[in-house]
Amino acid sequence: MSDSTVSRRRAIALAGVGVAGVAGAAAVGGALVRGAAADDTPHPAEGAVAFTGAHQAGIVTPAQDRLHFVAFDVVTKDRERLITLLKDWTAAAARMTAGQDAGEIGAVNGVPEAPPDDTGEALGLPPSGLTLTIGFGPTLFRNAEGRDRFGIAAKRPPALDDLPHFPGDMLDAGISGGDLCVQACANDPQVAVHAIRNLARIGMGVVSVRWTQLGFGRTSSTSRTQATPRNLFGFKDGTANLKLEEPELLDEHLWVRAGDGPEWMTGGSYLVTRKIRMIVETWDRSSLTEQEAIVGRHKGSGAPLGMTAEFDEPKVAALPETSHVRLVHPESNAGARLLRRGYNYVDGSDGLGRLDAGLFFIAYQRDPRKQFVPVQLNMSRHDDMNEYLKPMSIGLFACPPGVSGTGDFWGRTLFS
Amino acid sequence: MSDSTVSRRRAIALAGVGVAGVAGAAAVGGALVRGAAADDTPHPAEGAVAFTGAHQAGIVTPAQDRLHFVAFDVVTKDRERLITLLKDWTAAAARMTAGQDAGEIGAVNGVPEAPPDDTGEALGLPPSGLTLTIGFGPTLFRNAEGRDRFGIAAKRPPALDDLPHFPGDMLDAGISGGDLCVQACANDPQVAVHAIRNLARIGMGVVSVRWTQLGFGRTSSTSRTQATPRNLFGFKDGTANLKLEEPELLDEHLWVRAGDGPEWMTGGSYLVTRKIRMIVETWDRSSLTEQEAIVGRHKGSGAPLGMTAEFDEPKVAALPETSHVRLVHPESNAGARLLRRGYNYVDGSDGLGRLDAGLFFIAYQRDPRKQFVPVQLNMSRHDDMNEYLKPMSIGLFACPPGVSGTGDFWGRTLFS
Repeated sequence: MSDSTVSRRRAIALAGVGVAGVAGAAAVGGALVRGAAADDTPHPAEGAVAFTGAHQAGIVTPAQDRLHFVAFDVVTKDRERLITLLKDWTAAAARMTAGQDAGEIGAVNGVPEAPPDDTGEALGLPPSGLTLTIGFGPTLFRNAEGRDRFGIAAKRPPALDDLPHFPGDMLDAGISGGDLCVQACANDPQVAVHAIRNLARIGMGVVSVRWTQLGFGRTSSTSRTQATPRNLFGFKDGTANLKLEEPELLDEHLWVRAGDGPEWMTGGSYLVTRKIRMIVETWDRSSLTEQEAIVGRHKGSGAPLGMTAEFDEPKVAALPETSHVRLVHPESNAGARLLRRGYNYVDGSDGLGRLDAGLFFIAYQRDPRKQFVPVQLNMSRHDDMNEYLKPMSIGLFACPPGVSGTGDFWGRTLFS
Repeated sequence: MSDSTVSRRRAIALAGVGVAGVAGAAAVGGALVRGAAADDTPHPAEGAVAFTGAHQAGIVTPAQDRLHFVAFDVVTKDRERLITLLKDWTAAAARMTAGQDAGEIGAVNGVPEAPPDDTGEALGLPPSGLTLTIGFGPTLFRNAEGRDRFGIAAKRPPALDDLPHFPGDMLDAGISGGDLCVQACANDPQVAVHAIRNLARIGMGVVSVRWTQLGFGRTSSTSRTQATPRNLFGFKDGTANLKLEEPELLDEHLWVRAGDGPEWMTGGSYLVTRKIRMIVETWDRSSLTEQEAIVGRHKGSGAPLGMTAEFDEPKVAALPETSHVRLVHPESNAGARLLRRGYNYVDGSDGLGRLDAGLFFIAYQRDPRKQFVPVQLNMSRHDDMNEYLKPMSIGLFACPPGVSGTGDFWGRTLFS
């Protein structure tokens, strides 16, 4: 696919759609459209986030409003097939984040009877800030029987060691873990869904979808330019999140440094995901006073309890001992900080008259053993909010550094 | 709740958030915010759709991009409790569609220890084009045993008669039907989810959530001002949909007229919903030629097969006999037309490595017996697309006319 020499325009002509087809697609909504360029070079269009860089996009990128997250099982035993897929994915990701198709529509190397190399539902839509971020799970290195699946077991970072059991966790293995993950964030869910679907399509026979999660209404800001959004408890959350504009803090808490572990992860970051159902019907029956004491913030302003404005520094020691803000605050966790970029979800209802809704928690960090794990243990043990939460899943992934330009690919530092 | 005499500003002050809290909320993103007004009068803010009118909003309203749809079971046997709920819902819907809270945050009639009368997650968000549209299901009039539940059985419209079985349907009763439904459409999913959640909260003890569905990427246009979007098969769909700018066609095909049935439905419309899973992985392996023959359109331009532009009138008799466009075209169905405003959905994956994705079909019409039923029978029997579809659910609801101003409420024409 990445070797195709047929331009998108020529491919469509071969498939009989003709020039009117291209014009029709290009006319939609006045927006810059996918594949408007006459060759295969990704041309970043309005709203595109750069795909290449020292770090992967989608981590400190100002959090987009929609998420489609996928975890894959690798179903091949062939290292070369896996590497080829990672190269094909990289090429498709570069195209899609630039607002183009995943590949040719209508012809592969000039064969019009082949299935299209893009599924088409994002035709006419702008890039919408799409980012695609890949991660490698512990099981990619060694399977449950301890076998080195792809000759990379020696490169498995100690930071990918099994997470401890957290008090109260009764998790669903079917929506936990995974050999690979891709986080798609965009300002249009159709664009995020299109991206994951096309990566799954390209991966057919090499990977299989293990679980996916759709999310909306980012629950954290990753830039000072963004207002702090509200979670499904109706509270501002993540006010003290790590932010794009704090490069020294990012170096200390977010990006893996040389010497932290295996060299291939330098410039990368570790990702923890958790699906946390929120029992909103019970929460909604508790009083405002109780809600605010549990969170440790005022609901209206987002100010820490006892303060007047959202960004006032909380007096941590003065907050209720079991309040959420106190328990997850760096002062209560030996300075540990996370970059959070989770999303709200609603998966319908639960058959008992309640919404199946909550938070898909996403956190990036330099070392989960020193960051997510102690913070989560503190919260699992003491947080009054647990009464309203039901943890459903967990995932841990090593997200490699960013790709540079030509010839580089997702996972090159790991596989070469 | 609708009788509250405490203004939102006073309520927040009572609850101890104070003026800084209001200012904090009002500052978010520069947008007009919920409840910025100092009294209980809904003040339509930027992006608000009028709630009152001869017809309900959310039908011909230019289709917003996101959906949260809910069906409720009524759990009370008390007619007066149901009517009170409909009045409370109407007041909350008027507030929320105007960009305000569902009710007071922090105090009910000045009691700060009560649970908040709004869940808070939409604080700071603009109205986002929210519409809320109510419908009454056949079982509201008479239950499965034939009992007249609320003294309205004599008013049950013949157009709500049981739908026939459609060939190929193996439906899930748990996500079908319902006594009541509310369709929330908005340009921000957080706003649509907030609205349904608050209606469910207000209805506690009177109704219970039966099923809900989240959707994105409207799959139809209901106005000539909108570009035709694409469904998850990657095709433009609903090009020939009924549109806001066609009042004579709407009178003929969409709005119930005096004499059509019981008088209380005059100015209303009948709603059919269907969750249709699309087996996208199989579809994605079929050639472009085959896909276009099945749909009856070109994928790139959306033009009918053999034509060059999307809005070219198809030569229906020249299309493949089993093509989708031909089978659902008014010419093939004695002139029957529908107003469609469905949404794409992704509910995660199915545990077999495939996305659980498809179309949540929504169609409004003057009489389903003459419109949805014959079109669906034609499609169920002959459409080649069925190979890639799995119908999951069905719902049928009578949506009453719109409410006027003060004192009117959802269902007044039915219950008085």
